[in-house]
Amino acid sequence: MPHTIRDLAAALGAEAAGNLDLIIARAAEPQAAGPQDLALATSPAYAEGLAKGQARAALLWPGADWQGLGLEAAIFAPRSRLAMAGLSRMLDAGPEIAQGVHALTDIHPTAVIGEGASIAAFVVIGRGVTIGPRARIASHVSVSEGATIGCDALLMQGVKIGSHVTIGDRFIGQPGCVIGGDGFSFVTPEKSGVEEIRATLGQREEIREQAWTRIHSLGAVTLGDDVEVGANATIDKGTIRDTIIGRGTKIDNLVHLGHNVQVGEDCLICGQVGVAGSTRIGNRVVLAGQCGVSDNIFVGDDVIAGGSTKIFTNVPAGRVILGNPAVKMETQVEINKALRRLPRLAATVAELQKTVSKL
Amino acid sequence: MPHTIRDLAAALGAEAAGNLDLIIARAAEPQAAGPQDLALATSPAYAEGLAKGQARAALLWPGADWQGLGLEAAIFAPRSRLAMAGLSRMLDAGPEIAQGVHALTDIHPTAVIGEGASIAAFVVIGRGVTIGPRARIASHVSVSEGATIGCDALLMQGVKIGSHVTIGDRFIGQPGCVIGGDGFSFVTPEKSGVEEIRATLGQREEIREQAWTRIHSLGAVTLGDDVEVGANATIDKGTIRDTIIGRGTKIDNLVHLGHNVQVGEDCLICGQVGVAGSTRIGNRVVLAGQCGVSDNIFVGDDVIAGGSTKIFTNVPAGRVILGNPAVKMETQVEINKALRRLPRLAATVAELQKTVSKL
Amino acid sequence: MPHTIRDLAAALGAEAAGNLDLIIARAAEPQAAGPQDLALATSPAYAEGLAKGQARAALLWPGADWQGLGLEAAIFAPRSRLAMAGLSRMLDAGPEIAQGVHALTDIHPTAVIGEGASIAAFVVIGRGVTIGPRARIASHVSVSEGATIGCDALLMQGVKIGSHVTIGDRFIGQPGCVIGGDGFSFVTPEKSGVEEIRATLGQREEIREQAWTRIHSLGAVTLGDDVEVGANATIDKGTIRDTIIGRGTKIDNLVHLGHNVQVGEDCLICGQVGVAGSTRIGNRVVLAGQCGVSDNIFVGDDVIAGGSTKIFTNVPAGRVILGNPAVKMETQVEINKALRRLPRLAATVAELQKTVSKL
Repeated sequence: MPHTIRDLAAALGAEAAGNLDLIIARAAEPQAAGPQDLALATSPAYAEGLAKGQARAALLWPGADWQGLGLEAAIFAPRSRLAMAGLSRMLDAGPEIAQGVHALTDIHPTAVIGEGASIAAFVVIGRGVTIGPRARIASHVSVSEGATIGCDALLMQGVKIGSHVTIGDRFIGQPGCVIGGDGFSFVTPEKSGVEEIRATLGQREEIREQAWTRIHSLGAVTLGDDVEVGANATIDKGTIRDTIIGRGTKIDNLVHLGHNVQVGEDCLICGQVGVAGSTRIGNRVVLAGQCGVSDNIFVGDDVIAGGSTKIFTNVPAGRVILGNPAVKMETQVEINKALRRLPRLAATVAELQKTVSKL
Repeated sequence: MPHTIRDLAAALGAEAAGNLDLIIARAAEPQAAGPQDLALATSPAYAEGLAKGQARAALLWPGADWQGLGLEAAIFAPRSRLAMAGLSRMLDAGPEIAQGVHALTDIHPTAVIGEGASIAAFVVIGRGVTIGPRARIASHVSVSEGATIGCDALLMQGVKIGSHVTIGDRFIGQPGCVIGGDGFSFVTPEKSGVEEIRATLGQREEIREQAWTRIHSLGAVTLGDDVEVGANATIDKGTIRDTIIGRGTKIDNLVHLGHNVQVGEDCLICGQVGVAGSTRIGNRVVLAGQCGVSDNIFVGDDVIAGGSTKIFTNVPAGRVILGNPAVKMETQVEINKALRRLPRLAATVAELQKTVSKL
Repeated sequence: MPHTIRDLAAALGAEAAGNLDLIIARAAEPQAAGPQDLALATSPAYAEGLAKGQARAALLWPGADWQGLGLEAAIFAPRSRLAMAGLSRMLDAGPEIAQGVHALTDIHPTAVIGEGASIAAFVVIGRGVTIGPRARIASHVSVSEGATIGCDALLMQGVKIGSHVTIGDRFIGQPGCVIGGDGFSFVTPEKSGVEEIRATLGQREEIREQAWTRIHSLGAVTLGDDVEVGANATIDKGTIRDTIIGRGTKIDNLVHLGHNVQVGEDCLICGQVGVAGSTRIGNRVVLAGQCGVSDNIFVGDDVIAGGSTKIFTNVPAGRVILGNPAVKMETQVEINKALRRLPRLAATVAELQKTVSKL
């Protein structure tokens, strides 16, 4: 997707200098940049790399001496990651999916596909499905009966959308994600050991044989606008009502969201996070990689949880947490320091005991 | 799947009252229930919701005044989750897969498919496969050569059954699960660093370059009757004998069970649990979400492990455990309390040291 | 794949005795071995099992009295797991994929497929793809535009190779793995809460609403020779340059490797490990199951991390680590011992305080 420096700068709302008609085909790291690449040199640390590469133009830090760096043109980025977002969108050609519907597909005659859709080979679309305009649907995708997807959807290879799932506009599904598997919900005829120990925190009276009866998922999943779901992530259907993910929330690879979970708007749910059934997550919550959240609890707005934080109880809005079990991040940092010295502390106490007993 | 109140109550073995001929099409939360829905109001807390909704019938707590709640009919549930299991089964229409075999499939002529099967588009079934009566196989499923699946199987979209896998009756495979990938088993020509530190708990004599040679998986996987496997979960083949999952065991999304693992009957293995190679898990074991179990150990019958418990050593039958590394749940609860006070404890000990040294 | 004892021993470089012309079809555990199986009895502990089974030949420990064990032939294995690697390779028939290209495929006319390839039903291969000789590609695989795969590749069911991914020789992709999904990279217009707490370790000045703008992945993924990737594992594309996995590295099921990650050569990345964006992992690193590695850090050569180790900071070469957060394994073992006694330690300190205050 080639663009002039002028067009790129205008799209980014950024200042530019030099030959604004220079045409850029790709972005590249400074030392690897060729003559048609825009080198990404967003801090002075990259100046050396620029000298090694062959870039004629670069994305530079504000105030950089682009001529001194041997460039013909430059764009200046006050907030470089934000500029990267705009640049990468413009330079991304997107997946190659031919316009129209491939012959080797299985699309139910009642399905309504919006204008301008591209549907690749071996796609299956069920009865009564509605898909908005300009959808791009890669190979091996299935969209089951009664599902609805908004406009400008991008469903990558092997995405599986379950029956009666509702998805907003501009959805992106990475390869292999599953939206709308059945919830994991089972019950025993009598009170199970799990129910018992939840009440007693670990005590069991009598251990009985128990087999599991399935609770079917009659609900589905509802995703708001601008949601993205990562590769091989899974979001289960609700039992009665839908599992709900709010507008603008981004979900990474291999995340698991259980039945009846509610996630608010503009959250970031990073790789391999798991959220158990019926838990509610507020707006703008960030769960770093491998976090776990127990079932039936509430995580307030604007909570940020560091990597591998395990959340067993409600978390008030705005809290920054870390650890297993989760505590305030600053507390966990203190605990971690003390933990490293714990064997020494134990030895000190043993010494003290001896000394004191002599006294 | 509409039913009368009479039929629903009979199927649940529950008492009912009022107009038993009322027809119910769906279940709903009380406040969202329409006139053809059965409102699920299994405790007095839901009475307010009932008043807001339009339900004419409800599943109620024992002794509820259904007429006072403005209902025409009611079913009474002494154990509400168990009633939900029965209700949800009756009201679940199940996935829409047309009877018979879709034209766009690749089914080996030697494969034997039982009576009444429904096989969707783009399904692949290999040489010598046997699938029992009434199987429902959704799109993009593959069942490889020599595999055997019992009666009433439900294989959702993109399920992958490996060669020579054996599966019992009433199997449910959620979308994208993989039963029978190869085990992760590699060996170095000389003793590897991993073997060394296992013996020494962390000490290494000399670090040598080492490359990994693959041990192929010659075994397969055997699943008992009534097993369910979650979306994108993976169960690996055994090296020589089969990896084995017992009757009635339920496995959640994104679970990983390594080669040669043996899991007993009626277990619950929750989301994102991982069990490393050659470990044995007893009967009725519950591993909550994100638990991890080391290789070559044994977890006894009726063990319950709380969320994110990491199990490195054998666990005796009946124990309730929590934490990383796993200890008795009640011990972990005490440790967690003490941990939060650990920085203070360290300060106290430092004070004591000063005081005692003065004495 | 039947072989004589002579051929098996020669291929393993091992000594053999007895009837070297005996033909072996499979390997088996001693007690389960039939007359055409090679019983795997690599230590004296298996002698009893041998007596129960019907094996006529066995893989035995050095110096074993094969005749006394009632066998007709034996192979002697000084390092039994290494012998298993050779044996299992010879006895593995491999997946059944018919030679040539199945009719129900969608292969772009510009794609170049090497000689001797086997391509199963419902495979999709994009524009400009190059696949080396003797590739075996199972059903439902997709290889997107511009990807390159070396010789002797084995792509199991539903493997998804993203656009412009480069893969070396002898690649093995287990079912459902995704190489080349988009990176999880988002930015807010102003500094986000995540950026703030990284600097302050938990303090936030003011909480603002924030929405996420996507940074597209313009890079791809490069895998060296002899890489294996596990079932449903995911490796994301880089933002500008490629995510890189070195020669000989083996990756297990459900592993997540983020954008821009670099993994060295001959590493073992076990089940459910997650590595966040832009982190570099050295050569011969072993990460046991469920390890997590933060973004933008460096893990040195020959590091070994025990199960569920969570790595938040750089790790020097050769270190053996354990725990959350990661410390030296021997330190963690000490910490774990002290942790179990922590409630008692707290009580002891309280006692001491009383005693000392009396003094």
